Amino acid sequence: MRIALGVSYNGQAYSGWQSQPSGRTVQDHLEAALTRFAAQPVHTLCAGRTDAGVHGLMQVVHFDAPVKRAESSWVRGTNTFLPADIAVQWARTVPPAFHARACATARRYAYVLLQSPVRPSVESGRVGWVFQALDGQAMQQATSHLLGEHDFSSFRAAGCQAKTPVKTLHRIDIGHRPLTPTAAPDNAGCPSCYWRFEFEGSAFLHHMVRNIMGCLIAVGQGQHPPEWMAQVRDARSRDAAAPTFSPDGLYFLGPVYDDAWGLPTQTPAYHWLP
Amino acid sequence: MRIALGVSYNGQAYSGWQSQPSGRTVQDHLEAALTRFAAQPVHTLCAGRTDAGVHGLMQVVHFDAPVKRAESSWVRGTNTFLPADIAVQWARTVPPAFHARACATARRYAYVLLQSPVRPSVESGRVGWVFQALDGQAMQQATSHLLGEHDFSSFRAAGCQAKTPVKTLHRIDIGHRPLTPTAAPDNAGCPSCYWRFEFEGSAFLHHMVRNIMGCLIAVGQGQHPPEWMAQVRDARSRDAAAPTFSPDGLYFLGPVYDDAWGLPTQTPAYHWLP
Repeated sequence: MRIALGVSYNGQAYSGWQSQPSGRTVQDHLEAALTRFAAQPVHTLCAGRTDAGVHGLMQVVHFDAPVKRAESSWVRGTNTFLPADIAVQWARTVPPAFHARACATARRYAYVLLQSPVRPSVESGRVGWVFQALDGQAMQQATSHLLGEHDFSSFRAAGCQAKTPVKTLHRIDIGHRPLTPTAAPDNAGCPSCYWRFEFEGSAFLHHMVRNIMGCLIAVGQGQHPPEWMAQVRDARSRDAAAPTFSPDGLYFLGPVYDDAWGLPTQTPAYHWLP
Repeated sequence: MRIALGVSYNGQAYSGWQSQPSGRTVQDHLEAALTRFAAQPVHTLCAGRTDAGVHGLMQVVHFDAPVKRAESSWVRGTNTFLPADIAVQWARTVPPAFHARACATARRYAYVLLQSPVRPSVESGRVGWVFQALDGQAMQQATSHLLGEHDFSSFRAAGCQAKTPVKTLHRIDIGHRPLTPTAAPDNAGCPSCYWRFEFEGSAFLHHMVRNIMGCLIAVGQGQHPPEWMAQVRDARSRDAAAPTFSPDGLYFLGPVYDDAWGLPTQTPAYHWLP
C-alpha cells in the first residue's frame, strides 16, 4: 500500500534533505522514524530535495508501506520517533500510480529576507539578511525576465543532477512588511523591513532560487539595472550571475498536485512567516 | 558614561538571562562581547531576567561605559562578538539616574501557543503546544480575576527573589489566528491555530507568566471553570495552581519607561510572531 506524507521541518540542524552516510539529514531521520514505527525498513522518495539549512513547510514523500496502519497512526507513530524540529503533518493512502516527484505539476518556495542595519537574532537561521535598503520596483521588474520557459543554466549549481536546465517559472511575487507596526510601510521611509519572495515553477534546478535571490538583491541594491537579469539569463553561464545567496531564509512551501489525488493543499505556518 | 542597550535573543540555546558559572547565559555572552569591544570589563544590569529557553524581543540593560564610543559603535562593535542568536538593536547614552530595572514602570510578555493535533516542528522551541481545542472566551473570563493589584503567591516559583508577591497586572489580551488562511478563524471550526497571549504588568514574579499560562490552559480545556482562577489566586499557594507551562512560547517583549528617557519604544519582530 502506497502512503503519501506531508512533512515540515526546520532545516537549521540538518545537512539538507537527501540521505547521507553521516545520517544527519531530514530524510535519514524520517526513514529511521518510519522504520522504527513499521518495525521494517522504509525508504521514501520526496517531491523536492532541499539544501543544508533550507526549511520545509510541506515536503511531500511517498513510500510503499510494509505494514498496514491507519493514516492517523502513521502521523502520530512516526512523530514519536522524530526530532522536535521535524514533524509529519498528514498521511494519506494513495494509488500505486502516485509518485511524490513525478506527479508534482509545480513547486513553490518562499524566501524571507530581513532588511535592517542590525543582523537577525531571534530569527537567526530562518531569514536572510541585507543591511542596505532594497528597491522593490527594480527587483519586480527584473523578475519579468525570468518568467516563462527558459534555459536557467546561469542559475544552476555545478553539481545539479536535473536532466535539463529548461524550466518554467510561473510567478515571482515580492512583498514587504515593516518590522514594527508604526514604521512606514514604504521602503523609502523604512530602513528595516521583512521582504518576502514567493516563487512558483514547474521545477527548480539545484540552488536555482538562491542564485536568483543573489541576482535580485544585486538589482535591488542598484548594482545592476533590472535588464541585467535578461543578460544573466541569456549567458547560460553560472559566471554571469551573482553569488549564491544564504539558505537561511529559504522555505520549500511544497509541491502542487492534481486535485484528483486528494492530498491536503494547505501549507500550515506559512502565513506566520514574516 | 551610562549606556542603555536594547537586546534581542532567541533563548533556545541558553540557560536563561542571568550570569552563571557555566557561562552559557545571555548575560554572559553579552558581557563577554561588551568586554571584548571595550577592552575592559563591562557589567550589565537588565530590566527583566528571563528563564532558560525564554526569548527576548527587547530586553534592556544599562552599564557604565569604561570607554567613550559612538552609540552606533556600541551596536555594531558588540554584535561582532555576539553569537548569531543574540543582537544589540540600539544603544543610547542615558543620564546616570537611569536604571534598567528600577526605572521600568511596566513590563510586557507574550506567549505564543500552537493548538494542533500535530506538535510544532518548523517553530519548535518558539511556541508552546496543546493538542486539544481551547475555549478562548472561558480563558478571557478567567483573566478578569487576575487584573489589578493582587498577591500572586499562587503563581510564584519557589526560588523567586522578589521582595513582595504583590504585583499589578494591567492587561491580558488573548487572540488567535488560523494556521492556514482559508481555515475558519473561529476556534470551534478550526482544530489548528496559533494563540497569542499578551501580558502587561508592573512587574512579574519568577515563573509568573508560565504559571498563569498553565492555569489559563486548564480553564481553556474545560478542566476548571473561569471562576477557579479566583480560587487559585486567593489560595496564595503554589499548590493551588496548575503546573508551570513550557518556556518555549514565552517572549519578553520588554520594559516600559517614561518617555522622558528618550529610549526607543518599538519592539522589532513582534508582529512577525504567529
